[in-house]
Amino acid sequence: MEKLNIVKIGGNIVENETALSAFTNVFANLKGKKILVHGGGKIASKLASDLGIEAKMVNGRRITDLETLKIVTMVYAGLTNKSIVALLQANHCDAIGLSGADGNTIRTIKRPVKEIDYGFAGDMTPTSIHNKRIQSLLELGLCPVFSAITHNGEGQLLNTNADTIASALAVGLASNYDISLIYCFEKRGVLKDIEDEGSVITQINRTHYSMLKEQGIIADGMIPKLDNAFDAISKGVKKVIIKHANDLTDEQAGTTIF
Amino acid sequence: MEKLNIVKIGGNIVENETALSAFTNVFANLKGKKILVHGGGKIASKLASDLGIEAKMVNGRRITDLETLKIVTMVYAGLTNKSIVALLQANHCDAIGLSGADGNTIRTIKRPVKEIDYGFAGDMTPTSIHNKRIQSLLELGLCPVFSAITHNGEGQLLNTNADTIASALAVGLASNYDISLIYCFEKRGVLKDIEDEGSVITQINRTHYSMLKEQGIIADGMIPKLDNAFDAISKGVKKVIIKHANDLTDEQAGTTIF
Repeated sequence: MEKLNIVKIGGNIVENETALSAFTNVFANLKGKKILVHGGGKIASKLASDLGIEAKMVNGRRITDLETLKIVTMVYAGLTNKSIVALLQANHCDAIGLSGADGNTIRTIKRPVKEIDYGFAGDMTPTSIHNKRIQSLLELGLCPVFSAITHNGEGQLLNTNADTIASALAVGLASNYDISLIYCFEKRGVLKDIEDEGSVITQINRTHYSMLKEQGIIADGMIPKLDNAFDAISKGVKKVIIKHANDLTDEQAGTTIF
Repeated sequence: MEKLNIVKIGGNIVENETALSAFTNVFANLKGKKILVHGGGKIASKLASDLGIEAKMVNGRRITDLETLKIVTMVYAGLTNKSIVALLQANHCDAIGLSGADGNTIRTIKRPVKEIDYGFAGDMTPTSIHNKRIQSLLELGLCPVFSAITHNGEGQLLNTNADTIASALAVGLASNYDISLIYCFEKRGVLKDIEDEGSVITQINRTHYSMLKEQGIIADGMIPKLDNAFDAISKGVKKVIIKHANDLTDEQAGTTIF
């Protein structure tokens, strides 16, 4: 099967003009078929605050009310997505910016209201990813660039976690491609010692992961990231890599989950 | 040659939720291959004003400074474009939202500074339209939905007039398709008597146009619209139609320029 790299970048790159410019240059040089998924960052929060719209949080999670949905659609699918695409085009990477509504590429369902009403948050289903459509775009030589906005197929845009989009894309396309799912990160990988960038754990399998969790070496925010990674592996994704954005084209760098 | 409808809608539809919902329903029912181009409307001006950014005008024309470019990219390429795409998808029209940067579909040049510096305004060149790329997307069964944002190929997004984009697309694709370029308008067509919606002039050719201008029946804002239309005709576009959005699927409605 042909290789496909799916790369996710976070707010730390997106909101910093210098970092974004450097990243797009490196990403453009990544060989073969590829997809980019980008998170949001503080531009949306800043815009909301400039407009006097308060961020609504419940249990540390953002609630997407209608005003917030408009803001994230403007920033993620508009300003951020198009800025990235223009920079990639300047680096001779034939990028095409997409929300999940575009070409019906990612169709989600509005998160059901249980204890908390998350508002306009979109959750993945097993059939969310329109893999044939995305494959057609890749076959045209295009590099899809996904913002974290999806739709429900009934006219409603929905806000969706970018990490989740990246892993759903990887799983959804795993029957078509030999996939490496790469999460770019502010560290050089998963670290044995969080204070030491030299302590990258180069490989983690499921047994190793349980051990590292028991020992408290992997904790906090890293756990959902790795759970997500192993979930993708169990669903056919060949490998998941966590690395620094600057190391994107260095195949030895970062932590490989398999 | 296969038929292709290129439809342009303006701010009056885009900024009104009810009108947009009705329009997307009608547009989705338009048979065959089609492209939608949308203008901006007052949402961008309102956002700018809410953020305390003053609209800069010189000789009645908007100057796109960097702050304004960000606003229009957010609104046109983000909120408006994705809302339209989601509504079209809900109406079973397989829409894909594009700026000119996406897939390098429309590459413009920053308007040269002469007496006035228009800022980040993008002007068309004879090679601006990537007709092969747009044709590939149409062949996939997709309906491209263009916002009025383009790029210069060097990483810079540019603000471009939506009427100009629609006519450049029509001209650029005229060697591939039998094109009808349809400008949706708040009136039923070009009117003999501006007060009487029943006075639609059904057909105008170049001779007829000169006459109507001399008689003062066609004046003001209608002149650049029609000049644009005749320019498109002279460059291979089969016909240009000016009609009300509600009459989109009525082939007898509006004014046909040929």
